[in-house]
Amino acid sequence: MAAWSERLAGIRGVLLDISGVLCDGDAGGGRPIPGSVEAVARLKQSRLKVRFCTNESQKSLRELVDTLQRLGFDISEGEVTAPAPATCRILRARGLRPHLLIPEGVRSEFHGIDTSNPNCVVLADAGEAFSFQNMNKAFRVLMGLDTPVLIALGKGRYYKEVSGLMLDVGAYVKALEYACGIEAEVVGKPSAQFFQSALQEMGVDAHQAIMIGDDIEGDIGGAQRCGMRALQVRTGKFRPSDEHHPQVKADGYVDNLAQAVDLLLKHTES
Amino acid sequence: MAAWSERLAGIRGVLLDISGVLCDGDAGGGRPIPGSVEAVARLKQSRLKVRFCTNESQKSLRELVDTLQRLGFDISEGEVTAPAPATCRILRARGLRPHLLIPEGVRSEFHGIDTSNPNCVVLADAGEAFSFQNMNKAFRVLMGLDTPVLIALGKGRYYKEVSGLMLDVGAYVKALEYACGIEAEVVGKPSAQFFQSALQEMGVDAHQAIMIGDDIEGDIGGAQRCGMRALQVRTGKFRPSDEHHPQVKADGYVDNLAQAVDLLLKHTES
Repeated sequence: MAAWSERLAGIRGVLLDISGVLCDGDAGGGRPIPGSVEAVARLKQSRLKVRFCTNESQKSLRELVDTLQRLGFDISEGEVTAPAPATCRILRARGLRPHLLIPEGVRSEFHGIDTSNPNCVVLADAGEAFSFQNMNKAFRVLMGLDTPVLIALGKGRYYKEVSGLMLDVGAYVKALEYACGIEAEVVGKPSAQFFQSALQEMGVDAHQAIMIGDDIEGDIGGAQRCGMRALQVRTGKFRPSDEHHPQVKADGYVDNLAQAVDLLLKHTES
Repeated sequence: MAAWSERLAGIRGVLLDISGVLCDGDAGGGRPIPGSVEAVARLKQSRLKVRFCTNESQKSLRELVDTLQRLGFDISEGEVTAPAPATCRILRARGLRPHLLIPEGVRSEFHGIDTSNPNCVVLADAGEAFSFQNMNKAFRVLMGLDTPVLIALGKGRYYKEVSGLMLDVGAYVKALEYACGIEAEVVGKPSAQFFQSALQEMGVDAHQAIMIGDDIEGDIGGAQRCGMRALQVRTGKFRPSDEHHPQVKADGYVDNLAQAVDLLLKHTES
């Protein structure tokens, strides 16, 4: 592999995944990954632009930011690109009335959205709410539509909580896609549109931006397909086999965010 | 399409799907599809051989047959090819110790199977037991194995109960396949091995056998890939769009089992 100075040349902006990079989540709020609080602070003090790009759909943006601030992170709502607000914009623009299969925590984001007589289904990382009954209800809504529309807030396979690996929304998206014979529209990583809006909000072009994430497909593969570079951290849901993924090769693998920031500050500030 | 006499020429044996062909199931036991009780009786009185071929994995074989007998059907355990007994044979032959995500009703079929320290996951049509917690447990077992083995009792998309369409085990198989990046081994329709054992048990070659089912992919497509002919009934989970399926074309579409038996007796007994 090329030297870090070459791999990081010209970087002006950094997109940071949250879960598995900043912290390991859990029902109680999670815990910061060692060194990440300081790494974010150092990054924000540098000349690099920073934005957070998450598929988090268990909590509202307000709650997510509150939790991260309580863990010590320097972060505000305006700095986060998240799928729920993006989904609401799509629903309004297309006159869609969703049946929502989402966790209670994120319901407030959909305040004011007409959910009567649904003509689509919106799936978020509903966790315990992915009961058979709730899944079957969503399935029946889709099967009752002439043109079934399924909107997924992300398509992650799994993530890591303190207690261990957790099935992510993508598994349940696949279940409904298969049962209904349809393909979901994904709002969130790895959708190119989602990365592009994060880049636009950061004000940096793709070729000058780097994504830092723990998901080899959603973060690394997705960002690279948009023309960005991407580093995978060996925290969160990282598994050693990711470094030998058959399709995706990160621009670098680092032990954690702290090491990524060390490298970025060393090779881009000079 | 060719005349029925041509399409049914040389048929000596009939495989009958159960749910959606004989009866529409529900939690309370289901109800027979009008004309099906008599149709099975007429078929069994004819010179045609008859066998039942089901992916039913919510009930034990004993319970299933009891229920059907109560509904008036002439059926016995020895006449049914079902996935749970076939799965037990596979588990024993390969020394597999399953983590079972199955409904309570079918648990007795796995009596005597070692489930300690699991080295595979077996998924049946678990219905309400497909909670997030149970799915996540199965996911974690698979992710903890060097070579994850997932055995699915069928891969149906959905079936019809009296209350409406119900998600079938296939949706949950897809969820785990995606989350773990693996492919399940299917025991049940549309697996060729499963159809072949039903044919063997009936003692009829594929080219002289016909499948009657309500599932365009699992029943019709699966049987045809084995060299059998197949009729789709317009009962159970049948949907009008099935008659324009992009890949699968049945050898005939009939309103119900009664009509299928009328045609079979008329065109094969002469």
